[in-house]
Amino acid sequence: MDVVLIGAGNVGTVLGRTFKQVGHAITAIWNRDSEKAKQLADELGTVAVEDLKELPQKADIFLLAVSDKSIQEVAHQLTITAGVLVHAAGAVSKEVLQGVSNDYGVIWPMKMIRSHMSSLGSSAIIIDANSASALQVIESLAESISRQVSRADDDKRLQMHLIAAITSNFTNHLYHLASDYAKEKEIDFSLFYPLIEGVIAQIKVQDPEKAQAGPAFRGDRVTIEKHRSLLADEPVLLKIYDEMTQSILHKFGHQ
Amino acid sequence: MDVVLIGAGNVGTVLGRTFKQVGHAITAIWNRDSEKAKQLADELGTVAVEDLKELPQKADIFLLAVSDKSIQEVAHQLTITAGVLVHAAGAVSKEVLQGVSNDYGVIWPMKMIRSHMSSLGSSAIIIDANSASALQVIESLAESISRQVSRADDDKRLQMHLIAAITSNFTNHLYHLASDYAKEKEIDFSLFYPLIEGVIAQIKVQDPEKAQAGPAFRGDRVTIEKHRSLLADEPVLLKIYDEMTQSILHKFGHQ
Repeated sequence: MDVVLIGAGNVGTVLGRTFKQVGHAITAIWNRDSEKAKQLADELGTVAVEDLKELPQKADIFLLAVSDKSIQEVAHQLTITAGVLVHAAGAVSKEVLQGVSNDYGVIWPMKMIRSHMSSLGSSAIIIDANSASALQVIESLAESISRQVSRADDDKRLQMHLIAAITSNFTNHLYHLASDYAKEKEIDFSLFYPLIEGVIAQIKVQDPEKAQAGPAFRGDRVTIEKHRSLLADEPVLLKIYDEMTQSILHKFGHQ
Repeated sequence: MDVVLIGAGNVGTVLGRTFKQVGHAITAIWNRDSEKAKQLADELGTVAVEDLKELPQKADIFLLAVSDKSIQEVAHQLTITAGVLVHAAGAVSKEVLQGVSNDYGVIWPMKMIRSHMSSLGSSAIIIDANSASALQVIESLAESISRQVSRADDDKRLQMHLIAAITSNFTNHLYHLASDYAKEKEIDFSLFYPLIEGVIAQIKVQDPEKAQAGPAFRGDRVTIEKHRSLLADEPVLLKIYDEMTQSILHKFGHQ
């Protein structure tokens, strides 16, 4: 397929690389900061344009990989005569693309993408489209780079985006708080990697509910108070500790 | 080494199997519910005793693998003439063993252990002892079943236990809440496994702080409000959502 790349940030860069690797052609690249567009165009053997109006008006796919709040504004500067316009955002309605192209939709890779990645790698991709023909093109593109492609409309995709935030951003924040605490106490955080990996291995074979353990799960208030006393000088972590502990106590009937 | 096993729950069972696999001898097993002691003794080719007083008085290691709140009480019923007495708890002082044996300490596997496991597998083990000679025996036993053995005194071990609760029990609780929500919305939770595994892969190569992403990290209040509106009928999850979001906003200077 011919792909026009609009945006050369993390997502545009890594999807551009991935598309090229599986045999698609990137026919042009635009980015607000044109220096970045040129760099990526050099890497992918294509051309960078400075003005959105200079982009090809025909392609199989126009991939809008810009920040959530710029999607609508950039989309409405495009002049597309043929092709499917897609954005790559989990929490933005596909309808912000309405009126720019007859065929439009979404291709959302459920992964934290950083520009240093050489390709997308393992990731579920959630797609949507406004028409059967657009869906066919988007599905084919998504299946060329992922084995796990699912369709979800705007509402369902936003629910998935919420679940993604809870399971990745929030868990990462717990690791962040815990590793800061470990640093302060001169404890090697890498000691906890096998434990952390064990949790993931568990939830893949049984419901997380059945995999729960620990003092709050057991209603062990003696140990909870020992932990809380360690956190007397750590108000941020203590607040999170209490909130999570209350929620676990509640879920397992200890209140 | 000769090991006497006191307690045939999850930890006693799995450590018993692991010790036997690497060539140690389990010379006797006691458990409050003697049926379970008999079963494990049959499996490990040893004898079960009904009364603590019937246990051998000499061994290289007496492993007390009972619940945190029973450790002290059970320990003080033992009659040990030679050998190192250890418990396996992260949040209990080694000093509860004082007066039972000259040599005592702790061997705490940092892992959620379930009795169905055929062996301990990959796990950091934290050890402590009251004497150089006890430490040598405990270290040698721990190193026979794990490549990651560290020493930590009571205070340090309790700090580690807190970090373990945050990084495993709390993250698992987030998976629990998220998978309940996914079930309710008929979303396949396995879609999120690559995302979750990606978080773990990231924190092993860079600080969790540097791996953070998502709406709260970006200070994206539009998306946060979209998520919050989805949770209008989910008070438990909304409370956790708000607490984690506030903490991330705060950490990354958006307040």
